[in-house]
Amino acid sequence: MKKSDLEKLKSIVGENNVKSDPADLYIYGSDSSVHNALPWVIVRPENTEHVQKIVKFANKNKIPIIPRGGGSGMCGQTVPIHGGITLDMKLMNRILEINMPDVYCRVEPGVVDDDLNMALKPHGVFFPPTPASSRIATIGGEIGNNASGVRSVKYGATRDAVLGMKVVMANGDLVDFGAHTRVEASGYQMHKLIVGSEGTLGIVVEATLKFVPIPEFRCLGIANFDSIKDAGEAVGEIMASGANPSMLELVDSIAIKAVNKTMDLGLAEVDAALLYEADGMVVEAVDYEINKMQKICKKHNGKDLKASYDPDERAKIFMGRKKLFPALSKYDEALSSTSLADDMAVPYSKMADMAEKIHAVAKKNNIVMTAYGHCGSGCMHTKILMDTNRKDQWASAKKAITEIYEYVRSVNGTTSAEHGIGLSKAESFKIEKANSLDTLKAIKKALDPNNILNPGKMMQAPEDWVTATDLRYSVNS
Amino acid sequence: MKKSDLEKLKSIVGENNVKSDPADLYIYGSDSSVHNALPWVIVRPENTEHVQKIVKFANKNKIPIIPRGGGSGMCGQTVPIHGGITLDMKLMNRILEINMPDVYCRVEPGVVDDDLNMALKPHGVFFPPTPASSRIATIGGEIGNNASGVRSVKYGATRDAVLGMKVVMANGDLVDFGAHTRVEASGYQMHKLIVGSEGTLGIVVEATLKFVPIPEFRCLGIANFDSIKDAGEAVGEIMASGANPSMLELVDSIAIKAVNKTMDLGLAEVDAALLYEADGMVVEAVDYEINKMQKICKKHNGKDLKASYDPDERAKIFMGRKKLFPALSKYDEALSSTSLADDMAVPYSKMADMAEKIHAVAKKNNIVMTAYGHCGSGCMHTKILMDTNRKDQWASAKKAITEIYEYVRSVNGTTSAEHGIGLSKAESFKIEKANSLDTLKAIKKALDPNNILNPGKMMQAPEDWVTATDLRYSVNS
Repeated sequence: MKKSDLEKLKSIVGENNVKSDPADLYIYGSDSSVHNALPWVIVRPENTEHVQKIVKFANKNKIPIIPRGGGSGMCGQTVPIHGGITLDMKLMNRILEINMPDVYCRVEPGVVDDDLNMALKPHGVFFPPTPASSRIATIGGEIGNNASGVRSVKYGATRDAVLGMKVVMANGDLVDFGAHTRVEASGYQMHKLIVGSEGTLGIVVEATLKFVPIPEFRCLGIANFDSIKDAGEAVGEIMASGANPSMLELVDSIAIKAVNKTMDLGLAEVDAALLYEADGMVVEAVDYEINKMQKICKKHNGKDLKASYDPDERAKIFMGRKKLFPALSKYDEALSSTSLADDMAVPYSKMADMAEKIHAVAKKNNIVMTAYGHCGSGCMHTKILMDTNRKDQWASAKKAITEIYEYVRSVNGTTSAEHGIGLSKAESFKIEKANSLDTLKAIKKALDPNNILNPGKMMQAPEDWVTATDLRYSVNS
Repeated sequence: MKKSDLEKLKSIVGENNVKSDPADLYIYGSDSSVHNALPWVIVRPENTEHVQKIVKFANKNKIPIIPRGGGSGMCGQTVPIHGGITLDMKLMNRILEINMPDVYCRVEPGVVDDDLNMALKPHGVFFPPTPASSRIATIGGEIGNNASGVRSVKYGATRDAVLGMKVVMANGDLVDFGAHTRVEASGYQMHKLIVGSEGTLGIVVEATLKFVPIPEFRCLGIANFDSIKDAGEAVGEIMASGANPSMLELVDSIAIKAVNKTMDLGLAEVDAALLYEADGMVVEAVDYEINKMQKICKKHNGKDLKASYDPDERAKIFMGRKKLFPALSKYDEALSSTSLADDMAVPYSKMADMAEKIHAVAKKNNIVMTAYGHCGSGCMHTKILMDTNRKDQWASAKKAITEIYEYVRSVNGTTSAEHGIGLSKAESFKIEKANSLDTLKAIKKALDPNNILNPGKMMQAPEDWVTATDLRYSVNS
């Protein structure tokens, strides 16, 4: 980046908020995916005016600009493959308003999910889309990704919780989308389009979010299964039955083993387990849901059923799921847990098939793959455990994920449930969305004619990034 | 329309499905708003290929094309102000799939809401956004409008129920948006943008919709109030309390009087009444919600409280609300009930103010205005009762709605809660959305470069249509 450009950026946000030394660039070159590429500079805006000025400057000079929250994205969404400005939004982290009578809050995009929920708690309410990465994930990143999490089965994804937003468009204009009311039929629902657009259509500088009451009662249960197919079928039947779980999670044998290796939880090493939760203001209603789910689990050969309202007991039951993500990398010291085809969604009736498919494909390709996820919302996560120093393992992984995506598309599933597209999933995304790509490109071009906003992601992802799942290998070796 | 063009259209859909005699054109020239303008021709496609061929023809020849469902739109959305083809979608009325295991259905756009719910009922489920016009409103129209209704306070609006759709774009391409899964983070949520776009971005030819279980228990209650302010305050407190009503409706004294004039219900002629409903699978949970709401009603001087689980009793309590819309035209034989500023949404804490404001503005301008609506979702309906043969009454109505919209915008409310924008609300819409109009226009231009899809609506509404609320008067006299 030209020195004069750096000076210009410093004049906008101040000397301290512009970083371009190699160590900083390196850190901001990766997220939680396998991809990396260096930005030219990191700029930290403190307010909306800063963002507007930076975007105007970038647009005039056709410099890529990539908004970034906690860096917990798993598909390379914030990896600046065409260089440019990484816009670190974490200084814009004010909770602007918690409006209890009107049941919404207004926040800046850099607010961390857990911090928002901490602030909401004294009011007896919570923001429910919360992903597993809530300790670092920001609201801006969650909006970019259309994030969801364990409780989305009952409470919906980020798209469902966003009432409105302020967005800086590619030309630097500040615009309002959505409303402050619970319903609205006031023209194009632009805020719903911005959710999930991965920073490619505009930069969110404020969001108006719904929240919901913290339930009086929560009951969490577990059921073990000797066959992952049985567990998957129980999920399908639970969701088709009209049950209303506040959580319905599946973990497979590999996930259970990984957790047992890292923590002294003594989980039964079965083929699969389901965690199911119900919540509400009235204990009879929670009991009703738990009983209904347990009955279905039993019908599908579920065993070792237990459930508890006690917070400590619940924390204990949930601990294995909570610590799963870091535990996977300890499953085998020689193997690293990588995010490639890391999350898909399929219709409920395909959940059992999908779980079996993942294991069969892994076996066929001589890699280890785990299947787990928020199955109540149709979401199935995987991680590929492999020796990332071996090129042949990358090739096997590539084959495996291609097969899995083919399966997912064949059963009317979708490439990403909650982690977005970015680079990792662009190949399958382009196939899945083939007949609408022209429309998506037209929208992108209309709102960002100079293609400065997070260029090269989703439908724009270049083939060599999309297909090179051995990228990190080639970059690092 | 040229004879050769008519012949072309007949060659696509058959002789019987092209109508251009004056009587037909007249009928299709109005909807449930005050506006009217004649189409050149009415074309009734029977399938997606028909729609694609018609749109391609229209696009090539730059002929406006206006998709139309049941004609129950209240803001002139389907009034063809630039002429062209009215595309009557009612022959595309097949329910293509009711997929119980995967908890979705696929329908053509011409399916009437009540017909869908009739088909779902034997499966123990229902499609909840249902507006009051469900006997004639089609799913396509509900999508175009982002319709909602009495149960949207708990179950959401149409935007929340649509998982995916097939859309014919302006160039005739058939594209898929959304997914068949409960969550997805697979790129731009285009289906959420199409919902509420009033046929201006594409023509929906199939929709994938969620449904929910029919609850075991429903309890409906009523409370009378001597002051509409008290009733509005009760609404605000109920919604801020975390209560979860499945219905929360307000009716004012004018609405009550109108109903009493037309039906022998013997409603108490109080200043306002609230109807509140709770539903669920467990009676204790329903009781809990009803008790909570009744307690709040009492706190705000609610009286004559009663509530019932009995279907006949519930039907009796609800009858007044159900028949309100036609009853309003009988309030005074000299006055017609007109849809002008017919529905707005405000934050919950402004509900009481809003109700009082409507009456004050009406009084000031010497017209009669009623206030009622789905207050639990922030929605407040009005009807203006006036002598539509008197030009001065139109002028008064115009003044009144301008004042009301100003108020709505001043309290962070929105121009339309569920009836859309069309022509009637375009003036306020343009003010409310001033800073995003360029973005909306850019989206429209990107997806419909020849401006053939329902031109002249929302941000495109011409000033003379927008401001001429005395349009019907001037047309008919």
